Amino acid sequence: MFIVTAKCILIEGKTEEFKVIVETLIKETREENGCISYNLYQDINNQNILTFFEEWESKNSLDRHMNTKHFKDIAPKLRELQKEDSIVNIYNKI
Amino acid sequence: MFIVTAKCILIEGKTEEFKVIVETLIKETREENGCISYNLYQDINNQNILTFFEEWESKNSLDRHMNTKHFKDIAPKLRELQKEDSIVNIYNKI
Repeated sequence: MFIVTAKCILIEGKTEEFKVIVETLIKETREENGCISYNLYQDINNQNILTFFEEWESKNSLDRHMNTKHFKDIAPKLRELQKEDSIVNIYNKI
Repeated sequence: MFIVTAKCILIEGKTEEFKVIVETLIKETREENGCISYNLYQDINNQNILTFFEEWESKNSLDRHMNTKHFKDIAPKLRELQKEDSIVNIYNKI
């Protein structure tokens, strides 16, 4: 099992727009094979920081996710609302 | 419920020492009131990045944690093995 975090630092004022666009991505991703959980969190001290917490059964299921239509369609739209590229880390539990 | 991430970027070669010292902190923290989960993960692409994923019932339970003896004793020792301060984010689920 892998945990992925993707920290998105948004352009000021784009948070609500981001939340609307991301809904479809969340809904469809959760239905993917190998997706254990896929949630979005907001930093309580900085509303412009939104982080995805994702649990995947395998690296393959994560790689497949990155090649789905919904990810390829929506991720670029989300990126337009961000100051910089997402900070992505892939973790193993110790 | 709050999620806390604390990303620790370690000094080269200090990972094993960190893992030994942190064991007591993890064990005792999990027994605290209000601690839902408290886990440590290692980045699969950079073994010097270890991140705590913590779930707390309330901000109070998190604040209490930061004032426990085991946290106050062990956190400074872990910090000595890190290149910089931990990157801490506190999140609410969207």
